[in-house]
Amino acid sequence: MIISIQAEASNDERAQLMALLCRITGNQRPITTTRIREREVIVLDNAIDGQAQAALREQRAVADLQVIKTGYQLVSRAFQAEDTQISIGEAHGCEPVVVGRTAKPVIMAGPCSVEDREQLLETARSVQAAGAHILRGGAFKPRTSPYQFQGLGVEGLHLLAEAREVTGLPIITEAMEPDMVDLVASHADIVQIGSRNMHNFPLLRAVGKHRLKRPVLLKRGFAATVEEWLLAAEHIVAAGNPNVILCERGIRSYDPQTRNVLDLTCVPLLQELTHLPVIVDPSHATGKRELVPVMSRASIAAGAKGLIIEVHPDPDSALSDARQTITPEQLRVIVRETELLTSLLKEGSDLTHAA
Amino acid sequence: MIISIQAEASNDERAQLMALLCRITGNQRPITTTRIREREVIVLDNAIDGQAQAALREQRAVADLQVIKTGYQLVSRAFQAEDTQISIGEAHGCEPVVVGRTAKPVIMAGPCSVEDREQLLETARSVQAAGAHILRGGAFKPRTSPYQFQGLGVEGLHLLAEAREVTGLPIITEAMEPDMVDLVASHADIVQIGSRNMHNFPLLRAVGKHRLKRPVLLKRGFAATVEEWLLAAEHIVAAGNPNVILCERGIRSYDPQTRNVLDLTCVPLLQELTHLPVIVDPSHATGKRELVPVMSRASIAAGAKGLIIEVHPDPDSALSDARQTITPEQLRVIVRETELLTSLLKEGSDLTHAA
Amino acid sequence: MIISIQAEASNDERAQLMALLCRITGNQRPITTTRIREREVIVLDNAIDGQAQAALREQRAVADLQVIKTGYQLVSRAFQAEDTQISIGEAHGCEPVVVGRTAKPVIMAGPCSVEDREQLLETARSVQAAGAHILRGGAFKPRTSPYQFQGLGVEGLHLLAEAREVTGLPIITEAMEPDMVDLVASHADIVQIGSRNMHNFPLLRAVGKHRLKRPVLLKRGFAATVEEWLLAAEHIVAAGNPNVILCERGIRSYDPQTRNVLDLTCVPLLQELTHLPVIVDPSHATGKRELVPVMSRASIAAGAKGLIIEVHPDPDSALSDARQTITPEQLRVIVRETELLTSLLKEGSDLTHAA
Amino acid sequence: MIISIQAEASNDERAQLMALLCRITGNQRPITTTRIREREVIVLDNAIDGQAQAALREQRAVADLQVIKTGYQLVSRAFQAEDTQISIGEAHGCEPVVVGRTAKPVIMAGPCSVEDREQLLETARSVQAAGAHILRGGAFKPRTSPYQFQGLGVEGLHLLAEAREVTGLPIITEAMEPDMVDLVASHADIVQIGSRNMHNFPLLRAVGKHRLKRPVLLKRGFAATVEEWLLAAEHIVAAGNPNVILCERGIRSYDPQTRNVLDLTCVPLLQELTHLPVIVDPSHATGKRELVPVMSRASIAAGAKGLIIEVHPDPDSALSDARQTITPEQLRVIVRETELLTSLLKEGSDLTHAA
Repeated sequence: MIISIQAEASNDERAQLMALLCRITGNQRPITTTRIREREVIVLDNAIDGQAQAALREQRAVADLQVIKTGYQLVSRAFQAEDTQISIGEAHGCEPVVVGRTAKPVIMAGPCSVEDREQLLETARSVQAAGAHILRGGAFKPRTSPYQFQGLGVEGLHLLAEAREVTGLPIITEAMEPDMVDLVASHADIVQIGSRNMHNFPLLRAVGKHRLKRPVLLKRGFAATVEEWLLAAEHIVAAGNPNVILCERGIRSYDPQTRNVLDLTCVPLLQELTHLPVIVDPSHATGKRELVPVMSRASIAAGAKGLIIEVHPDPDSALSDARQTITPEQLRVIVRETELLTSLLKEGSDLTHAA
Repeated sequence: MIISIQAEASNDERAQLMALLCRITGNQRPITTTRIREREVIVLDNAIDGQAQAALREQRAVADLQVIKTGYQLVSRAFQAEDTQISIGEAHGCEPVVVGRTAKPVIMAGPCSVEDREQLLETARSVQAAGAHILRGGAFKPRTSPYQFQGLGVEGLHLLAEAREVTGLPIITEAMEPDMVDLVASHADIVQIGSRNMHNFPLLRAVGKHRLKRPVLLKRGFAATVEEWLLAAEHIVAAGNPNVILCERGIRSYDPQTRNVLDLTCVPLLQELTHLPVIVDPSHATGKRELVPVMSRASIAAGAKGLIIEVHPDPDSALSDARQTITPEQLRVIVRETELLTSLLKEGSDLTHAA
Repeated sequence: MIISIQAEASNDERAQLMALLCRITGNQRPITTTRIREREVIVLDNAIDGQAQAALREQRAVADLQVIKTGYQLVSRAFQAEDTQISIGEAHGCEPVVVGRTAKPVIMAGPCSVEDREQLLETARSVQAAGAHILRGGAFKPRTSPYQFQGLGVEGLHLLAEAREVTGLPIITEAMEPDMVDLVASHADIVQIGSRNMHNFPLLRAVGKHRLKRPVLLKRGFAATVEEWLLAAEHIVAAGNPNVILCERGIRSYDPQTRNVLDLTCVPLLQELTHLPVIVDPSHATGKRELVPVMSRASIAAGAKGLIIEVHPDPDSALSDARQTITPEQLRVIVRETELLTSLLKEGSDLTHAA
Repeated sequence: MIISIQAEASNDERAQLMALLCRITGNQRPITTTRIREREVIVLDNAIDGQAQAALREQRAVADLQVIKTGYQLVSRAFQAEDTQISIGEAHGCEPVVVGRTAKPVIMAGPCSVEDREQLLETARSVQAAGAHILRGGAFKPRTSPYQFQGLGVEGLHLLAEAREVTGLPIITEAMEPDMVDLVASHADIVQIGSRNMHNFPLLRAVGKHRLKRPVLLKRGFAATVEEWLLAAEHIVAAGNPNVILCERGIRSYDPQTRNVLDLTCVPLLQELTHLPVIVDPSHATGKRELVPVMSRASIAAGAKGLIIEVHPDPDSALSDARQTITPEQLRVIVRETELLTSLLKEGSDLTHAA
């Protein structure tokens, strides 16, 4: 249940509303107050009976009360019908890139991990030349084993900022713990939450609350349901950050032929359920570089608002994920196909509407 | 290991080869002799040492000996580099439809099950008008419960044949047991093996051996690996029928949001591993009609050589699978989008080759 | 919905009931008539409204009408409260073995496949000496690849019958296609339906209907839900054979550490849902011989009414499943532990009831 | 590769060893130095060639060099043959409870979440009376939705400490973020890492490093492989805390009949792979209270060194996980059965060794 607050409500009226809410919930359930762009809202789970709802509607401070039937509320289409569009890069003086427009899918590309200055700058220039809009690169790497390369850490963040300086491309990189969110956000244009952290609720709250309010890329947990994923996004939005991009990156299955199973159907499904933009990571989903171009194309055809792809000037020498990394040249073809496909989809959509 | 036999080998030379093979395998492992189009071949598993291979190569009856590294052999790209193209419908006097050409994906459409004459003829005419190339319809239905509608059986086959008469569309329908293969094949232009029968080896052998050698559509088992699926196709081909079409229809997963998870990545993966054509069934894969058009488009973008889609003039009244069935009107849009996408892919492919 | 027929109902009264049923179902849904031990019953799916139910209850031919809330009906606890007990081996003159008594779990043991006379007789004698009650052995083997050893076929059946002669142990072996059910049943004391055939409905009906009415061991499909498994059993029982033993043998999962994941929880769950006995196959479930003894013990602790285990005098030389096959000596320990555990469970159960 | 350091090595000798290691790894891979009980060790991944190994062995500072073939090293049986035994509760003056002895499985029991003082004290007393050895209770709760009860937080920790005071039972409770580890550890006797945090590497390092070195209960990720789980344990041990208890709590699967699939086979499998103790959580694994007693029994039969069970004086009124929570009375039966089973397993083990 989402209560929108009257902008002009007095402090007394607000206090009265809160008192009523506390009585209704018996102080047992969270009462979440937050701000979604210009709207001030209060969110509760839905276990409120009709009589209590009526009482709430009569409160002066209440502008509107919406009962949302799903567990996720602020991220649902039922709450917001129009697509969320997220502008990237302005804070660091980049030409803004908008995620969430069908007309122009956004391509994020770069190395799995930042390895050194030379590698990063070379890759950054080459993905820019290939047509990418945003530079990706891991500074802090979640590694299954403690004995693998863990990323360059803060030094990696500085190199990414330098690559932005040189190319003008906004950057995206991962934050792995609540304490590091502010640091990562101060360097990055998008803060990434990795697949293994989708259920890390303190981290979700931290990227929701952090001061700079950078957009967040929330990867799907590798065994998360669509509903759990939307609830993870809800954690971020409810904590105060409405700029969440969802990223499908494959789910775990029984067949070792590919690293994961890319669940492309979730793209049109999420289009129905949420107003947040969805992009696809074909690199982690397939784990095989020869499958990345075709699955990029299929992702755009499925309606993805963008792609995030691992690219390295010399894929075989990459320190991590070499097997799934493509060359800048292959990226160039993907960018071009994405553009062709986007105009086609425009035409197809006109067809559908005409039908 | 595949041994191709000299066309001109004498009976003595053949007998000599067989005798050697029996000595090598110690009569413990199957020696499969079959005919792939014009080639006569003998297939063994690969556990033959180098010395034995050399001895075999020296046999007069041996034209060629190929060691194939995968468990599936006759269906592998290593055995046959060029795509298999399968011509449908000539036996019943239809204008032939060719599956396996990228240039023109094949659309198979029709009701989940044949319900009565009127419903079938109406659907047949409407899917033809919408641009479908082949009519689908279940006469024998595998049902999880014995208390559900099991299909019209033989009467359903007759109605399908009548619908072909009326529309000129070849028909595809399912066979569920070895004894029924000849009957189904005599009416159908493609014999379908359902997902739950992918591991039914006597049935696979029966469609491989049957006299009419109708093309076979082999659906992926709902929890089969790609390798098991190819081995199922190998059972059919090794039994004497090289005309197998693979059909991805979604695999079982933990998320109840969709009926299955459509594993589209298997399309380009299979393109590498096998010469057999692959099509997609977006109806069973998603289980939700609103997702069928978008996933049809994504399937073609992933390189599928065709689609098989459940269509009903009045989807909500269908006796089975109502929830995932679309209207002829929606099919028309899918056909049109497929055509647009196909020319784009042609262009994209030119791009890739130019790169 | 299960209608029990009055034993003394006249033909007219029966005909009147059937006529009413046809009117109610509109001839669209199956009306299944069968005999469960001494009871004659008619089963329908549950979509019958209250008024129709009332009309049915008033029919002279109706002794009782039970609305069963699950899709499976005849196999449900709601239909039959007491455990089904199945007597094995009498038809071939063996001392009968009863499956379904908690007091004495039944141990079935023997080679994965029958390889030759000597191997089989030696194994048969040794598993008997170790305390096994029933001899298992595959004559017809479902093999993923057409190029693997497919079993000795009919010769294997004869060898199994000979082994029974020698040891007095009843035998269990697999049937893979409807046409072979009578042949297999004439030699075997239990007809096994393998995991890959759990959804093979013509085969389920064939073992349900076959003349000899041998007990059936129905393995769980490797990706089947408990409900689908019970519906598969329902197919057999509805076709006329109430003597079905369920066998859990592991389900497919994402972790390659073991061949399958043994879902032991299904044992107490099925104990609630069905009156049919449940046994466990720890060999296929784990795929590793060193895990078989411990998981046998855990299975009995979970309430399994028996075990089916792959045993070979020289496991490493077995033609199939060598990796998961144990020695007769290890079997002896399992048999002894099973007996110890059974008395403990008896004591524990007294405890629970006292509590 | 694990290098054990000579206790008497001089600082110079150590420095020389480190210099050599840096040369060998090219400063690209982590060199982990830690202390496992009395041993000082250095761990590297295994990509070190034979020549480099020989050079390392010759170093004065090196007492021993073990090449461990698995990715996890310190937790492997290859590194430590004898079972790890972990003593619980001494720091807070409790009678110590030892986890890791087969002779006496440890029962941890209590409410899902701490709700209020009265509920907790009543539950604590009743689980003690039923024979439990350790009190469980959640103060910080990871919740999929931001709108559900999130636990009492610090107040919950104080109540747990009070319950320990009253009953003398050591307590176990969950830590959800690195910053909270010290706080949780100062109140708890075991710090729990929940299933959704198994891949939260900063949290794993934090419980590895924290000053109080409390034992850690590491739940298996709900879709983690056994290998990933052992690597998560390796993160903790490599960071300095060797006292890790593994807890199987079910993995995600396709069948909604139970909340998860309890993978009991992992218990004997882990017994081979690691020296760390393994316990089972039958409450989360099954999600149904009626299955908890039987699966507790099966877990002990599979060799689990303990159980962690959700108990509430009035299960139906529990604020979370009501459906899977049992009564103290049912717990009493489980404790008694565990004891009976343990003596049986002792006897069975004697049997096996005699065999």
